[in-house]
Amino acid sequence: MGKTSVTRVTVQWGDCDPAAIVFYPNYFYWFDSATHALFESLLAPKQELLQRFGIMGFPLAEASARFMRPSRMGQTIEIESEIVSCTEKRFTVAHRCTRDGDLLLEGQEVRFAGRLDPQDSQRLRAIALPPELLAAFGLAGPDGP
Amino acid sequence: MGKTSVTRVTVQWGDCDPAAIVFYPNYFYWFDSATHALFESLLAPKQELLQRFGIMGFPLAEASARFMRPSRMGQTIEIESEIVSCTEKRFTVAHRCTRDGDLLLEGQEVRFAGRLDPQDSQRLRAIALPPELLAAFGLAGPDGP
Amino acid sequence: MGKTSVTRVTVQWGDCDPAAIVFYPNYFYWFDSATHALFESLLAPKQELLQRFGIMGFPLAEASARFMRPSRMGQTIEIESEIVSCTEKRFTVAHRCTRDGDLLLEGQEVRFAGRLDPQDSQRLRAIALPPELLAAFGLAGPDGP
Amino acid sequence: MGKTSVTRVTVQWGDCDPAAIVFYPNYFYWFDSATHALFESLLAPKQELLQRFGIMGFPLAEASARFMRPSRMGQTIEIESEIVSCTEKRFTVAHRCTRDGDLLLEGQEVRFAGRLDPQDSQRLRAIALPPELLAAFGLAGPDGP
Repeated sequence: MGKTSVTRVTVQWGDCDPAAIVFYPNYFYWFDSATHALFESLLAPKQELLQRFGIMGFPLAEASARFMRPSRMGQTIEIESEIVSCTEKRFTVAHRCTRDGDLLLEGQEVRFAGRLDPQDSQRLRAIALPPELLAAFGLAGPDGP
Repeated sequence: MGKTSVTRVTVQWGDCDPAAIVFYPNYFYWFDSATHALFESLLAPKQELLQRFGIMGFPLAEASARFMRPSRMGQTIEIESEIVSCTEKRFTVAHRCTRDGDLLLEGQEVRFAGRLDPQDSQRLRAIALPPELLAAFGLAGPDGP
Repeated sequence: MGKTSVTRVTVQWGDCDPAAIVFYPNYFYWFDSATHALFESLLAPKQELLQRFGIMGFPLAEASARFMRPSRMGQTIEIESEIVSCTEKRFTVAHRCTRDGDLLLEGQEVRFAGRLDPQDSQRLRAIALPPELLAAFGLAGPDGP
Repeated sequence: MGKTSVTRVTVQWGDCDPAAIVFYPNYFYWFDSATHALFESLLAPKQELLQRFGIMGFPLAEASARFMRPSRMGQTIEIESEIVSCTEKRFTVAHRCTRDGDLLLEGQEVRFAGRLDPQDSQRLRAIALPPELLAAFGLAGPDGP
């Protein structure tokens, strides 16, 4: 298993919908931020990684979440994030959100390191995950350490 | 299978990130809007349904997406939405996003009709899906028509 | 006075806050989209203009709004947008939002055509507004037609 | 002058647009959060104030900003917020955003304490600002202390 980082978010008025609970797409915004915080804790800030690897980002192949409890304005959510697996070109980040120990939601992002496809600017192309990234993930590669 | 509605979205500058493609949580915002448009086409505007059924919303139990192609500012996305299944207390909305026939992403939302739990205001409670809703979905109930 | 474009927006569940009215920063998101629609109606899509003028965008110098009436989920807002004045390097877009003829809010954006400052990447530099842009605005230049 | 609170925000990837700078409506989202933090530091969390005063929120009458420098992903912004004036029914919050002492932008929000208009649910009505609120603002009332 990879290393873990923890991100804390306090729910704001503008994050909530007319039911006075977090509007669910915001959780994915927080997942995205948490993934960047994880990268920074493991290796370097995202902008630096983009330059180093010559990529335009770490686009999503898949994203999902299972919601157990809602959150409301003023509550603080703890997001624990971890790289849980990878293949040659994709890695999976798991996010676990809790408040005072209660599980609120769990989610996963499957991402790749992406470049514009030189043949088709409407597509992104996944590059092989750089060894430096795999090492930082604490995963030796597709087959694990 | 249930009835279908189609929502069109034109990607705005503010929907895109520094990679100049749609920032992925926005797709879930559009899924949410597309689900409401589907409800309105099948039955009635959401606000009316909330009153009629005495619920605070249709909260998410699960949400997921698989991304095939990115979208950029100015492009118009067509979202085809459909209720594909339900159980006693949950229903699944499938969203299929295309541009000029090319599949961009697919997603699913599993939702329920929710009330505040009278015992614990930090939880939501799913009610049995109202027969009127099931009828509008074109699904007779948990076992299908 | 410049030419006008009209943008229509239907308020979504996710645009509203726990008071069940539009969360106000969303109006500025709509102003931004309306300005791009105005540009497209007057001249060309924004992405094309960025390339043509060698700029990174039309950043804001100022933005403001006065709010008269709230909007709720499901209501459709009409945004009438117009370039109302310009100086050598700045132009002002006025936005007037109505619903069924009732004025909801009015706003202004003062923008410029911006490049990164070659001396200081933390700053943007305004270029002189291209004559082609001024012509499209229906304004001859700083002194008007 | 009223008391001051300071809110810190780190700019996220998803806050930035294709020009790789903060998409400007997000600054108003941060102003909103900063106003709530100011209220909490002066008196009580917003949700508590809504109940105490029987209001649905502190809706905006006006909002504005002047932008001097852009911000990018990973940078931390300091927002200093202060109630600078009030009339019988309105108060003005000034926000000053800096990074390492450099002024990035300044803004103002004019707000009121709002209830639904019992005659017209499409309008909000401003109540006289509660004395407790004025006292917390460090302002004796419309005429100052």
